[in-house]
Amino acid sequence: MLYAVIMAGGSGTRLWPLSRRHYPKQALKLIGERTMFQHSVDRLAPLFSPERVKVGTNATLAAALRDQVPDLPEKNFILEPTGRNSAPAAGLAAIYLLHEDPDAMMVMLTADHYITDTQGFRDALETAAEVAADGTIVTLGVRPTQPSTGYGYIRLGAGEQLVNGFRVYESAGFVEKPDAETAAQFVDSGRYTWNSGMFVWRADRLMAEIEAQMPELYRGLSQIAAGLGTPQEADVLRSVWAEIPSVSIDYGIMEHADRVSVIPVDFGWSDIGNWDSLLDVLMADEDGNVVIGDAVTLDAHGNLLRSDGRLVALIGLDDVIVVDTPDVVLVCAKDRAEAVRDLVRRLEAAGKEQYL
Amino acid sequence: MLYAVIMAGGSGTRLWPLSRRHYPKQALKLIGERTMFQHSVDRLAPLFSPERVKVGTNATLAAALRDQVPDLPEKNFILEPTGRNSAPAAGLAAIYLLHEDPDAMMVMLTADHYITDTQGFRDALETAAEVAADGTIVTLGVRPTQPSTGYGYIRLGAGEQLVNGFRVYESAGFVEKPDAETAAQFVDSGRYTWNSGMFVWRADRLMAEIEAQMPELYRGLSQIAAGLGTPQEADVLRSVWAEIPSVSIDYGIMEHADRVSVIPVDFGWSDIGNWDSLLDVLMADEDGNVVIGDAVTLDAHGNLLRSDGRLVALIGLDDVIVVDTPDVVLVCAKDRAEAVRDLVRRLEAAGKEQYL
Repeated sequence: MLYAVIMAGGSGTRLWPLSRRHYPKQALKLIGERTMFQHSVDRLAPLFSPERVKVGTNATLAAALRDQVPDLPEKNFILEPTGRNSAPAAGLAAIYLLHEDPDAMMVMLTADHYITDTQGFRDALETAAEVAADGTIVTLGVRPTQPSTGYGYIRLGAGEQLVNGFRVYESAGFVEKPDAETAAQFVDSGRYTWNSGMFVWRADRLMAEIEAQMPELYRGLSQIAAGLGTPQEADVLRSVWAEIPSVSIDYGIMEHADRVSVIPVDFGWSDIGNWDSLLDVLMADEDGNVVIGDAVTLDAHGNLLRSDGRLVALIGLDDVIVVDTPDVVLVCAKDRAEAVRDLVRRLEAAGKEQYL
Repeated sequence: MLYAVIMAGGSGTRLWPLSRRHYPKQALKLIGERTMFQHSVDRLAPLFSPERVKVGTNATLAAALRDQVPDLPEKNFILEPTGRNSAPAAGLAAIYLLHEDPDAMMVMLTADHYITDTQGFRDALETAAEVAADGTIVTLGVRPTQPSTGYGYIRLGAGEQLVNGFRVYESAGFVEKPDAETAAQFVDSGRYTWNSGMFVWRADRLMAEIEAQMPELYRGLSQIAAGLGTPQEADVLRSVWAEIPSVSIDYGIMEHADRVSVIPVDFGWSDIGNWDSLLDVLMADEDGNVVIGDAVTLDAHGNLLRSDGRLVALIGLDDVIVVDTPDVVLVCAKDRAEAVRDLVRRLEAAGKEQYL
């Protein structure tokens, strides 16, 4: 059986001050009237019954997420005691799935992507599941629309085949975020896709890779698996998890995994990771300004202005992001959107808990 | 007897969104814990008893101003029915003064100047009053510290004399705000001062100039003067004032007045007309940022950040003004500070009364 696992554990400090420790980006209505998390669940609906949509998150965030998707069974929320990055999170989801279905196939998704062609997205997932049925690890690689330095890339290898109209390639390797020159070469070559973080695999196949590449994680997960359904389940999870190191799925598993395929896709995918990325997705006015809420501008172009109820007035500035919240206003150069994370760290260091 | 008249009728739209229609700039605590209006009254105290400090304003603003200076007698507030610019305002003050003292001498000041050397300021006023006693119209000209295009200039003429250590010149003409090149020539020549808008004259001498240069205003003021102290006083003022045209004292009187002298002064004068001007007066941190309230910056220099209680976070921007108020946040390029007035007009045109 095919299951979807939406990873929704991050807090999204780059979308501060709208996102906060206890109000993560998955709870934000950044695009339209649905949250990013609701969009993620919505677009799975035609392909997955609610029983087969799982959510990987943590206890702090779970309540807010559950309220957003009342149709999902409460037991479908897989709660990490604390965040340990994506490799442990994927492994934890795999043992939960295997506990209820030894033949489980797993689609791993995130809650911070925006996709315009949702039917194309579901078609790609179905095709990826077909390819993954024999034990291949399948990753969806997004065809680059620009030489972004904000994403990792996957090099397309040999072995091209056509499945349901999708070209399927062997992966020739995962590459971390490149510099601008390298990114331009990648895009020009036509042999690279963005690493979207969307994967499809048999759960037992993932566990085999974890056993081979991350034996310590494998031992921990095996202990947790043995405790599932017993009175000790929560205690075992908590004690094991305290010792698990944080490792990303790309670094810990994908870069050296056997039999990895890539399906290049083109369904209007955007990673809504920072404020700048919203400018690519939302509709701008005739001055190139994206306005959410009430704003007035004078000689201002290419700006993102977002407010909850107050008036934002902007004069004589281009390519600026203004995000207004009840207790904080952020004003940020568009090309410094990634630095919002650094500013949040600075507030943390200064002990300004009330703004985190 | 020497009287001071502080003109405090303007609303100061260039200091929006802190200044509002019913909360004018004279009510703002822009520098320290006293308002601009209080600073203006405070620095007169050693030289003028409260009875001899008059305030020219209008009915809308009077209550807020009176609350700020409880020591001034209520009758010292001269209320224009509506704003008619500085020439009619000066004339109205003159006839009130003449009504109580036919020998009145009048110092005309504004409420939006900041002065660091207040003793030097008072010394200059006393000297100007000495010079003005014979009927000379005296203006205080500020020695330029930069080739500003934001002020009018006064050309120093011949007839230099020394009074109490101050050099006194004949005026060789008032010049409206120059372009940058002309301003630089003015400053290089050493023969120009800024027109500060501070004047000293005998009240009857001002009336004579009004009679000669603005006969229509003179007739109106004479009617008002005739009504002073009668039951018709308020009615006459209202009906006459409705017909009075708006004219500035510079344009209507000073440019063609007889026997005008200039005393160059250097007592740390700043015109706090817009947000940019505050950057010259307030103390900056090591990054050149002036912060009033709570702010955090990252790679940001030369900015003015002002908030009432909320946190302003600024990343990767230089020379920007951020003014945060409970219902509006203004973000403005520093060199566009004058355009705040245009933005307020745009809000007016759009009927956004709640923000005016």
